[in-house]
Amino acid sequence: MTKVRVSAFGVSIDGFGAGPDQSLETPLGVGGTGLHNWFFPTRTFQRMFGNGEGTTGVDDEFAAQAMAGVGAWILGRNMFGPIRGPWPDESWKGWWGDEPPYHTPVFVLTHHPRAPLPMKGGTTFHFVTDGIHEALARAKEAGQGKDIRVGGGAATVRQYLRAGLIDEMHLVVSPVVLGSGENLFDGIDLLSLGFECTRHVTTAAAMHVVLSKNK
Amino acid sequence: MTKVRVSAFGVSIDGFGAGPDQSLETPLGVGGTGLHNWFFPTRTFQRMFGNGEGTTGVDDEFAAQAMAGVGAWILGRNMFGPIRGPWPDESWKGWWGDEPPYHTPVFVLTHHPRAPLPMKGGTTFHFVTDGIHEALARAKEAGQGKDIRVGGGAATVRQYLRAGLIDEMHLVVSPVVLGSGENLFDGIDLLSLGFECTRHVTTAAAMHVVLSKNK
Repeated sequence: MTKVRVSAFGVSIDGFGAGPDQSLETPLGVGGTGLHNWFFPTRTFQRMFGNGEGTTGVDDEFAAQAMAGVGAWILGRNMFGPIRGPWPDESWKGWWGDEPPYHTPVFVLTHHPRAPLPMKGGTTFHFVTDGIHEALARAKEAGQGKDIRVGGGAATVRQYLRAGLIDEMHLVVSPVVLGSGENLFDGIDLLSLGFECTRHVTTAAAMHVVLSKNK
Repeated sequence: MTKVRVSAFGVSIDGFGAGPDQSLETPLGVGGTGLHNWFFPTRTFQRMFGNGEGTTGVDDEFAAQAMAGVGAWILGRNMFGPIRGPWPDESWKGWWGDEPPYHTPVFVLTHHPRAPLPMKGGTTFHFVTDGIHEALARAKEAGQGKDIRVGGGAATVRQYLRAGLIDEMHLVVSPVVLGSGENLFDGIDLLSLGFECTRHVTTAAAMHVVLSKNK
């Protein structure tokens, strides 16, 4: 069955999914890269962005699972880029270069229409202006029965959580404090939403927790 | 030098230091005991409350350090007991039986005066009605140069944090979600307050992080 899931989503001790002041230079906000120190050395990350060699083990297993079996992605617009407001032109094509790591349709939530943007390697960015339900419906249609991954950022995940549309979350708690920025849990009562922690594994770098719906 | 510290303070993935609906039956709030699953099996805990035998290793080392070198404690009133408002009588003597595990003077923040309460084993509860600065001053005087431990709950820790009076925090992130209750980070910007993560160790049960002032 198609699962709508959040995977490999890094949070700080104090609950932030990104630091403050996101910009072209700091796409994850100030201090935000520290959330992903568990991820960078893994083979999964290094095969996507590095030299192809990296660590195996629990961190890499979670990283690989996060990418596997995903039929379509949904991203908030700030995860796609630093531009706010109407698109000045079509030149911004995401943070990831010519061949983004998605290799699936990716539905980007925005208030500003833009033509679909096909990239190398099977990724096509679709810009959805009709809200989160429409984006999910289109992702499900495009995903052909595979999982839908809500990639973030925190505000997008919170919207889907509040609407009761997330089935499973794999969070990775990293030993950093961010102080401010995008708080994943802001106004979110995970217990009322039906989640419980169904799996946890700690590594030297982080604590992986899987939250599943208990109903 | 005397440190004012928070130690072995359990928080959930979503930042809560206790669950909702604290009462005589659920002193840690609903679900709150799950925050301390790392602690219960340790030798340190078992020597205080159990059969004297327990696990050694990282969890126990942190548990032991949390108790060592403390000259006086500060507790919020809700950590002392479930009673709210004026003391109906002197019968409530804390959650811990005749011999509480503190073995030092303990300063309890309350709006309602009460005579000092000496207990077995060197613990005396002092009830402070003049606020957090007064409680800290009295704790420092009583602590004879040893550390002052702010035991909690979350609201008390937040007050001391906001006042800039905490030097070090050892938090223990447990793989549970509480959804609501007492959020340790509510309105707290740890970075602005000068904290950074200076040590972290994960165990099978939890992630220990030490936050220290970087100035």
